[in-house]
This record gives sequence, C-alpha cells and structure tokens, in this order.
Amino acid sequence: MNGAQALFNALTNAGLDTCFANPGTSEMQLVYEMGKSDAVRPVLCLQENVVTGAADGYARMANKPAFTLLHVGSGFANGIANLHNAGRGNVPIVNIVGANATYHQPNFPEHEFIGGKITEVAGAVSHWTREARSAAEMGILGAEAVSQAMIGSGRISTLIAPTDCHWDPAPDAPQAVAPAPTSRVAGSTIASAAALLNNGRKTGILLGTHALREEGLEIAGRIAASTGAQLLAETFPARLARGEGRVEVQLVPYFLEMAQFFFAEYEQIIVVGALPPVSTFAYEGSPSHKAPPSCEISSLATPDFDVMAALADLAEAVGASDETSPRCQRVEPDQPQGVLTAAAVGQSVSLLMPEDAVLVDESATAGMDLFQQTVGARRHEYLYAIPGAAIGNGLPVALGAAVASPERKVVALQADGSGMYTNQALWSIAREECDVTIVIIKNDAYAVLNVELARVREGEPTEKMLSMLELDRPTIDWVSISKGMGIPAVSVNTAEEFHLEFEQAMAQKGPMLIEANIAQDLQPVVDLILQQKAARAEQES
Amino acid sequence: MNGAQALFNALTNAGLDTCFANPGTSEMQLVYEMGKSDAVRPVLCLQENVVTGAADGYARMANKPAFTLLHVGSGFANGIANLHNAGRGNVPIVNIVGANATYHQPNFPEHEFIGGKITEVAGAVSHWTREARSAAEMGILGAEAVSQAMIGSGRISTLIAPTDCHWDPAPDAPQAVAPAPTSRVAGSTIASAAALLNNGRKTGILLGTHALREEGLEIAGRIAASTGAQLLAETFPARLARGEGRVEVQLVPYFLEMAQFFFAEYEQIIVVGALPPVSTFAYEGSPSHKAPPSCEISSLATPDFDVMAALADLAEAVGASDETSPRCQRVEPDQPQGVLTAAAVGQSVSLLMPEDAVLVDESATAGMDLFQQTVGARRHEYLYAIPGAAIGNGLPVALGAAVASPERKVVALQADGSGMYTNQALWSIAREECDVTIVIIKNDAYAVLNVELARVREGEPTEKMLSMLELDRPTIDWVSISKGMGIPAVSVNTAEEFHLEFEQAMAQKGPMLIEANIAQDLQPVVDLILQQKAARAEQES
Repeated sequence: MNGAQALFNALTNAGLDTCFANPGTSEMQLVYEMGKSDAVRPVLCLQENVVTGAADGYARMANKPAFTLLHVGSGFANGIANLHNAGRGNVPIVNIVGANATYHQPNFPEHEFIGGKITEVAGAVSHWTREARSAAEMGILGAEAVSQAMIGSGRISTLIAPTDCHWDPAPDAPQAVAPAPTSRVAGSTIASAAALLNNGRKTGILLGTHALREEGLEIAGRIAASTGAQLLAETFPARLARGEGRVEVQLVPYFLEMAQFFFAEYEQIIVVGALPPVSTFAYEGSPSHKAPPSCEISSLATPDFDVMAALADLAEAVGASDETSPRCQRVEPDQPQGVLTAAAVGQSVSLLMPEDAVLVDESATAGMDLFQQTVGARRHEYLYAIPGAAIGNGLPVALGAAVASPERKVVALQADGSGMYTNQALWSIAREECDVTIVIIKNDAYAVLNVELARVREGEPTEKMLSMLELDRPTIDWVSISKGMGIPAVSVNTAEEFHLEFEQAMAQKGPMLIEANIAQDLQPVVDLILQQKAARAEQES
Repeated sequence: MNGAQALFNALTNAGLDTCFANPGTSEMQLVYEMGKSDAVRPVLCLQENVVTGAADGYARMANKPAFTLLHVGSGFANGIANLHNAGRGNVPIVNIVGANATYHQPNFPEHEFIGGKITEVAGAVSHWTREARSAAEMGILGAEAVSQAMIGSGRISTLIAPTDCHWDPAPDAPQAVAPAPTSRVAGSTIASAAALLNNGRKTGILLGTHALREEGLEIAGRIAASTGAQLLAETFPARLARGEGRVEVQLVPYFLEMAQFFFAEYEQIIVVGALPPVSTFAYEGSPSHKAPPSCEISSLATPDFDVMAALADLAEAVGASDETSPRCQRVEPDQPQGVLTAAAVGQSVSLLMPEDAVLVDESATAGMDLFQQTVGARRHEYLYAIPGAAIGNGLPVALGAAVASPERKVVALQADGSGMYTNQALWSIAREECDVTIVIIKNDAYAVLNVELARVREGEPTEKMLSMLELDRPTIDWVSISKGMGIPAVSVNTAEEFHLEFEQAMAQKGPMLIEANIAQDLQPVVDLILQQKAARAEQES
C-alpha cells in the first residue's frame, strides 16, 4: 500500500463518497486510486472556487462532508473565497491539496509561493490544517481531517499532501479515528438563559447554523411559544428550514440602517448557534453593532458547541410545552403581471416551486424582495449562498446541493454580477445532469455598490465612477454563456414570460437557465441612507 | 484631505495611471476619488484573477506597474493565482486591498477570515505587504508600495487599507519616496563568470526576466558570440523578444525527460536573471534537476539584482565585440492545409502575425509545436502567460498587454481548459475594445494530465479516471461563450479555415475569438515517459 491508497481508504472508511475535483499533476495518484474504485463519485469542476463551493452546497444538504481535490497552492487559492463562505457558515469540508514532494520544495520550483507556505494560506480559511511529512502519516491525517470537520456545526479541514507521501509505501493498519468531541453547553449557562427568558424583557432569540434547520426550529418554536420571545435568524443562514408549516423566524436585515430599525424594540438578545449581530461593514460615524447599546446580548452557544443539545436543554429549563410559535402559512399570490421586478420573480417562485425544493439565494439587492415573497412558498430548504459575504457561490452551491439531493428540485436565484464569478459551474451542472433551475436576476450592475457609493460621495456619481459599478457595456448575454456550457436557456422581460418559463422548468427534470431582466429601483434604500447621513451631519454641527 | 485622497495622490505622483479593479463596499472611497480624477484609467474586471492577471500583462508591456483595486480578503484570494504567476515572473504589481475598519475587525464581521489575517495570506504571494493602521500612513505606504514594486526585475507590493484609514483625515504633505535601490552584482562575481566562460567547457547561459528582453538579448548575444556559449531561455519567460532579427535563444523544455536530453551535452550553466533549472514537479525515482549532476550551475544574478548591468559588466569582462550570436531568421512556411494541428496553427500565426505584435501563450501541450513554429515569425514580444505554472492567466494577460500597448496587435494562444479559469476576461476585452485576437486551442481535455497519469497508472486508464481529465461531456462552445461576453467569434476545423479567419483577424482592429478545434497526438510524449519509466524499473530490479 502506498500513501495515496492509505489516504483514500481513510476518507472512504470515514464515510466520504463524493469528491469535487480539479486535479493537476501532483494529484494524479489520487485520480488513479479514485478511478479504480467504486467508492467515490468524482465531480470535475473547471475552476477551484466551483470545487469548494460545490463541496459547501453538498455538505449543507448531505449533512456530511464531501472531499475536494485541489492542485497545489494556487489551486487552493482559487478556492479560498468559497471555503471562506463555508467556514463562516460552519459547513464541513475536507480539502485534499497536492503539493511538491517534500524533498523538492526547497528547490523552489514554479508552484512554490514567493513569500510563504501554503500551510499559512490554508490556515486562514481552515479550522484544521496539516501538511503530511511522510506516507506513513497519510492515513491517520485523512481520518483526522474528517473527524475534525465534524466538530460542532461543521468545520473546514485541509490536508496538504506532498507527492512523495502519495507514492512512498505506507502501513496497512486501519486508520479509524474516534470522532472529535463537540462541547456541550454547561448547565449554568442554560440556567442563565432560562432566567433571562423569564425576566419579562422584550427578547429575541437569534438562531444560526443547525438551530435554523427543521429540528432546531421545532425546539426553538416551543421555547418561543412558552416564553414570548421572538425567533430571529442570522442575516446569512447557510441552511434555513422554510415555507409552509415551518416555524417562522424573522431574518435580521443586511443593511445597517434597516437592522437598527429592526432591533430598536429589543431589550435583550440570546444568541444560539450564531454570533452577535454586527454590521458587515463599518461606516463613518455609524455604530458597528446592529442592536442598540441598550440591548444586552448573551450567547447560549456558538456554532462550535452542540447547538441542538443546547436548545433541547433550554426548552426543558423553561418548561416548554409542545406548542410552538407561529408557523409559516402557505400564501398563493396572484400570478404576477407586467413589469418584471424581483418581487414578481419571487411571486412566481412562491407559486410554482414544488415541495421540498432547495432554494439557493445569491440574489444580492433583489434578495430583499425575493425573500419576502417566498416565505409563503411550499416547504423548502433555503440556502443563503454566501455566509462569508464573498460573492460567487450561488451556482457552485446549487451544483453541490443537487449532487447531494438528486430527488429535490434546486432553484438558484443568482444575481448577474456575482454569477459571473463562477459561471464555470454551469458546465458541471450540465455534465452531472443536475435538476437545477437557474434564474439569473439581471440588472446589469453591482447594484449594491450604487447604494454604498451614495454613503461616501458628494454630489452625483460621475460616468467614471459608474463604470466601476455597472455591467451594461457590453451587456452580458447569459443565454449564450449558458448554452456555451451545455445548459438550455431563455431570456425573459415580463412577469408573464418569466412565470411561463419558470412553470415549464418546474415541470421538467434537468438543468435550465432563465435570464430574468428585471426592473429595479433602489432609490428608497439610497434615500434612507442619505437621510440618516444628513441627520448625523446635523447632529455633529 | 482624507486617507483615500492621500493614497490616490501617492500612487499617481509615483506615475501610476492604470487601475484594474473589482471594487466592493470597502473600496468606495477610492472609486469616488478615481471617478473625480483624470489621472487614472480604471478597467473593471468581473473576477479578481482577471484583475491581477491583467495587471501582470500590463506591467510586462508598460514597464511600470498598474495598481489593482481588490475587495477585502476574499477578493484578494480570488486573485492570488495570477499574483503568484506575476511574482514568479518578477513582474511589478501594486495591490490596494480594502479591509474592515481597524476598530471593526475584532467584531469578526463576515469578511474576516476564520483562522488568520489577510496580511499572512497576502504575504505568501507578495514581496512587500503592509496594512495601514491610520489615515496618516496611507500616503507614505502608497508611495513605498510603488517603490518596492520596482526593485530588481519587478515585485509584488500589497497594501491593505482598512476603511477608517480611507475616511479619516490625513496630512497634506507630499509623500514621494526615493526609489528602493536595486543591488549591483559584485565585480568578483562578474570576474568568476568571465573565467568560467573562458575555461573551454561546453557552456549554457540561462537567461530569464529582463535578460530576455531586446536589450538584454543584444548584450547576451555579444557575450555568446565572443565566448562560444549557447544562449538558453528559462522555460516560462514572462517576456521574450523574439522573431525576425532577434538574437536567438533555446527554450529549456518543460517535461523533465526532454529537458534532461536538452541539457545532456552541457558541462556548465551560468544563470542570469533566472533560477537554476529544476523540474516543475518531482517524479518518483527521477531527479529534481533538469541538468545532469555533472553539470555545474553558477548564478551571475538572480532577478532581484540589476540584471542588465550584470550582463553589460560581463560583456566588458569577456571583451565582447559588437558581433552577436545568430539572430532569428524570417521563415515563411507553406500555407498549412488539411488537418488542423497545433503546428498548422503555428504556421498560420507565423505567416500572418504583423510586426511588433504581442504573442500571449497559454497553449499548454499545444505549445511545444506552436513555439517551434513561431520562431520565424516577424519581430514580436512573446509573453508566456504563467511563469508560476498556475493556469488561467492567458486571457487576463492579453487584456492587460492590450491596455498597455494599444498600438500593437495582441494574439492570445489559449488552451481551452486553462481558458475556462478566467473566461470573464473576455468581457473586459470587449468593453475596452482591445485589439486582441484570441485563438482557443481546443482539444476538449486537460491534455497534459493524460501524460502525467501515464507516469503513475498501471494498465490503461479507466473511464472514471478520464472523467477527471476530459472536457468533452459536454463539449464547451467557445463561440457562444465569447458572444455572450461581447466578442465576435467563429469555430474552425481545418487548417484552411483557420488560416482564413486568422488572416481576417489580423487585417482588422478589435477583439475577435477563433475556436480552433485541433487534432492532437501526445502518444509520442507518453511513449518517451513510459520508456524511461520502464528503464528505471529495470535498473532497480
């Protein structure tokens, strides 16, 4: 047995059966092992941010990690942004990264970085990083990588595997590793939270990671019903059980100004499986925190703890009955007509999306309307594509979710600017014949930046400023791009056209892309921000 | 004045006038400054590896850096692979990367990495990395970043700029920084090299970085003519002056087995502006070095030294006359006919490419033939896209080279698998109306990996192995993709069709893409490798 075989056995013995891959020369020994075996389904992706994003989407739906196969430091680097998204969403991924032979690294061949080692780069977006130094380590490190990925709500493990560790002989011994323990929240912490819930103050329970899945929401709903607390969801949920019959939660808004309004009434927040709510960006003269200073924030469990056990313990501590807080009701809006807006897209999606679909959301500014419109859809799993706010994960997550859940319809609501980042995912979706309907929400701009520019500019934006934010010269023809990678596609301009095409997509299996040319008016958001800016300026003077 | 203005002034005062950008919220203040000014041309790119690769191509032709504008850690990460290429090619780039406000970083908002800071990630592919800690530092750090990028043959500078350092007040003082000195090679080292050149042994002068530009080759040619040494070029030259009238150099082959054959006759190698020639990858049972152990390698100047001065000093030390070693002769092959091979593409390119064109090469396995066929082309600049061997830089480099050299025709020979990595560059090429002819060398595979798999497999490859190397299910329609991003495109299948389309592309200005469906036979390379493998196995038994 050689090191590559030992590693491959360790990964498959630990239950991994799916590999998203973009291999190179240094990974050929693993390609060879995988190619000889029936134990793993390899999915080739044409750029590494598709590889890592697909592994993210897969794990969110499969509840276990896939492993990635990445080519040396630069290949890993190409996949960092979506590993960052997965890591911030506490989604488990096991990365296997080839590297130069241990003895060849000091010769500084082309793939070696000029200023540091890949271990340092990998460590920035991995909870656990190791570089094998001999073939004998390959099996045990592979098993450890899986074990470490399963801690808490999920983690990123990265094993760097130099080529000589692949081809050198390795011991035959089984390499099972006991699961790494996930910490239970202490009884005193549970009791404190229970006391807070009984103190009569206006309380929000801010849920994240596994607390937002069906089982978590059921328990949280019982706690809320018995205490009068409001259930809130983190702004960027990796997976949220949603739609008809699911316990209802309020999403914390993205924009600081809206979030401040949202939190204004709360006196205390208890965070469960999430982090305290801070603004994604700081703005000059504005606070960092979304909740007011008067609102006390306490943490029941960060995502590293056993979040489900913490919720169950809390339910018991508050003596929760079987009754839950309100559930989402099915809403059947009128079939939308006329101008194609984000809201109209949302209405058609809400009307037509089948039960137990997966809704992947990277719709950016259009998402505010889309999210509102789809709360009354049939029961579904909602995956916010980018928990780490790094754009370009929607199409990869859709690919991975479809590979994990071939029985579910996957609907990807994808903004155009973000979608271009990883358009290569279309090819893998076509190749794997995934049942994915992609809706490109096309506004020909990085529209959010028009909002953000309003915060810093004096006067109107110049043509040159807009040239750095707008995508309309030339306009991108997503139908052509999609067909170029093997996915049939149509372009629509009215609510009626969209409804018809989306209806057909829902009625069939297999990949389909709809370019939805939407009309969008973000002026109300800009106005809100400018009003607050003016108010601050007046206060200061 | 605020920090963003101080930084912008520092960059423009240092002579920078081009910015490749993909900004986000934390860079809006710089978008605003750039948008108010005439001093800088911003070029929007739809993914950061296009941004950094375009900055690479720009600097290779402009002989000064562009600056990039990148959005926080994940945006920087997306651009790492091509920064790695530029860094390994010693091409100057100045990166400006937005970051969370200094006081907001500890709140761990979404863009903060899990386990490390962006400074460590940036440091892996930058020669110089700083994070501003106050607005007062922005100007001086901007000036230093440019100065540091200009050391030696060129370096990567990265300045991380938190948002509060943009909006806080900054001093008005001018921020000029003296150029950082580039080390001269010591006289004793020159004398040693001169002595080697006179010892009567079979000698190769292995040239890299600026030694391969026109001025460098002229001096090297005089040294070669007076000493009988052979001029060699590093395998992956960032820029090589080539074609009719240029001093001829022999490129060191990529594949180890071919390189060993190439170096077999040499007794000593003197390296100038390059590194000693090692194999890109180590292989089981094979040496790391391309030259035999009996061949002595000495370094006259690494790329950090003043390479041109070293060459001039060496020419004087050996008493070189004005006579040079042989120059490339114009070769006008017959117009190719029939099956479209890489060689046929090369012949048409050689026949038709106008004088002073820029030939960007990321043709991968097809490059062996293409490089041979274009040595007799008209005078041109040859840019090997990926000095760091990280695929996906050809289209970005073509974009950047065209922005730097609007008077030159740019021809990009681009392999299909690598081209997909950064296909987004097509949009910027269309938008900037670049005079670029892109030839997609389409073989529907990561063909090099078929060669590399042969090294490790026993028996024939399985379907499953090939599924990780081949791109033919579905085949990629580059014409559709290209049109989708605004570049007219055609697909050709014969040598005659290619010749006709390429001829038309050379006769017009503006972007054009030709999908060249080539027939390729790599079996001779596989056979060579398998022969050597068998010979090693026999030796061992």
